[in-house]
Amino acid sequence: MKYQRELLKDVEGYVPGEQPKTSGVIKLNTNENPYPPSEQAMAVLHGLSPQALRKYSDPVSLEFRAAWAQRYGYDGPDWVIAGNGMDELLSLAIRGFVDPGDAVLSTYPTYTLYDALAQLHGARLTTVDLDEDFQLTDAFFETPARICLLPRPNAPSGVCCPLEAVERLCRCFDGLVVIDEAYADFADDNCIEFPKRFENAVVMRTFSKSFSLAGMRVGAGAARPEVVRELTKVKDSYNLNAVSQAVGLAALRDYGHMLANVEKVRATRARLIAALTAMGFRVPPSQSNFVLAQWDGTTNARGIFEALRERGILVRYFTARRLDNALRITVGTDDEIDQLLQALRNIIEG
Amino acid sequence: MKYQRELLKDVEGYVPGEQPKTSGVIKLNTNENPYPPSEQAMAVLHGLSPQALRKYSDPVSLEFRAAWAQRYGYDGPDWVIAGNGMDELLSLAIRGFVDPGDAVLSTYPTYTLYDALAQLHGARLTTVDLDEDFQLTDAFFETPARICLLPRPNAPSGVCCPLEAVERLCRCFDGLVVIDEAYADFADDNCIEFPKRFENAVVMRTFSKSFSLAGMRVGAGAARPEVVRELTKVKDSYNLNAVSQAVGLAALRDYGHMLANVEKVRATRARLIAALTAMGFRVPPSQSNFVLAQWDGTTNARGIFEALRERGILVRYFTARRLDNALRITVGTDDEIDQLLQALRNIIEG
Repeated sequence: MKYQRELLKDVEGYVPGEQPKTSGVIKLNTNENPYPPSEQAMAVLHGLSPQALRKYSDPVSLEFRAAWAQRYGYDGPDWVIAGNGMDELLSLAIRGFVDPGDAVLSTYPTYTLYDALAQLHGARLTTVDLDEDFQLTDAFFETPARICLLPRPNAPSGVCCPLEAVERLCRCFDGLVVIDEAYADFADDNCIEFPKRFENAVVMRTFSKSFSLAGMRVGAGAARPEVVRELTKVKDSYNLNAVSQAVGLAALRDYGHMLANVEKVRATRARLIAALTAMGFRVPPSQSNFVLAQWDGTTNARGIFEALRERGILVRYFTARRLDNALRITVGTDDEIDQLLQALRNIIEG
Repeated sequence: MKYQRELLKDVEGYVPGEQPKTSGVIKLNTNENPYPPSEQAMAVLHGLSPQALRKYSDPVSLEFRAAWAQRYGYDGPDWVIAGNGMDELLSLAIRGFVDPGDAVLSTYPTYTLYDALAQLHGARLTTVDLDEDFQLTDAFFETPARICLLPRPNAPSGVCCPLEAVERLCRCFDGLVVIDEAYADFADDNCIEFPKRFENAVVMRTFSKSFSLAGMRVGAGAARPEVVRELTKVKDSYNLNAVSQAVGLAALRDYGHMLANVEKVRATRARLIAALTAMGFRVPPSQSNFVLAQWDGTTNARGIFEALRERGILVRYFTARRLDNALRITVGTDDEIDQLLQALRNIIEG
């Protein structure tokens, strides 16, 4: 292509997990919540007037940000950035705080989108391997970069590093520390207070998982007002449409609905981990709504992935170092997980 | 701010027109359509299921793009890019085809977002003045740059350059020519066929104006498949949420609703231009849903703008060269325009 940027020649872009067209498939591959979103949020969606769509949405999502600030104990909307999903917020962090050529630090493994975002910006992702238990090593704290992207819980292992490790990181890292808490509602603890304590800490959340609103594209982040200002400069002028703002706000106000769904997912997760372990999988202690099931048996993990697929059960398989012997399985409903476990037993026992 | 990018230090970001909180205001400042969106589109919105929100939206908006391709005579979705509003598409064009340091060409005056987007990318906007009638000059065709952003109709004058001028541009410009047709549905002709004829032509459209869906954030562009591929690389993974895709698709299918509203706006525009001209304003022949009313009388344009505001009528005023003697007025309903004209008479005759 004649006018192509040199930078983009070898870039593929991020490849999301597949969304099957056929129904009847058990979808445990993209970490969606198996339970429906808030009925109050649906009622707001269904009550939207033609006027709400005819006029421009609030470019800075003020009402939503104010409510989010209040919910999470922040002083006001100046501490909050809203995004068209958390993916946009990650892109804003890189475009707002990294110069082309600079390094972006993360762990290995990590959320694969980070690498794509760094590449697209002409920056480079530097990764430091997690140890065997998917924990941070000393080398990670000693690696300089312009920005650090730390998923906690980690993707795709689901493991949380100790809060003390994040504190140490915020103290010693000379740049912005973005704590990607996409899955934090499923965890025992979180870093939501960190931006108050550390000037370089940013915490990002999504409504896609715990709030069951993946199709709505709503994300939010907490950071110092001066950080929020920089992120705001690089965002699209009207990044959240009128519907996302209204539905996100309603979901936030129906917080109990989210918490109840999270409890169900956590209970199913415990059962899933126990059953997988009994079957011979090694499963790191997930704090997320998915588990990484590592397998060293005779049928390899890719074979299991394909056999599950033939049975109409989708999980995620990565052809990547340290992950190609594993399946990433979203915690579905109890019934879905029962069907998965039964299928796994059949496949493994051949 | 310690971690601030040098590039962003002097950047303000784009400032959208104000959205008043109080009702009863006549809003003629952000070029929204005064008529409601398609009832069929509203019915689709109100019929969305919890499942549609729970699951991720199609990352590449395939059904919407296929329908858009068909509507505008394109061979298939490979020729179409969908955006979270046209503003996102403009950002993708710059990020997909311009290296930091490169020049972006446009006219003066032009849509002010272009300058903001170029700055944020570390590129620079080069502009060539339009002549007194807001037409392109020879110098424009001779100015090299990596990409050219041409709003047609022009913003904020509303004037269309001849189709032959755009043909000449596509032939002689060595880079991508992005024809910003945000307002083209209100014009007598358009360039929708140009990407078929010229490999460097991209045509971008929005659902914000003619389809009355500014709050929904839906944009689409036509370009050669190899251009669409590059734009797709730099977009957010899930840039359109499930609601935008569904509502955009429904609005597209109810095409006659849009056309009928456009006819009403065009009729009111003719009446508005005639009345403003009779009052002593100079009004370039607008092909858009707004007019630029230039004023050389005693009360200056800013004074008129402020006096209108006191009367609860918002129009747009720009403190910029060649524009500071003018008001940009959105074509509202007949009733809104009657109230505007009455207020203007009172202010001017003072």
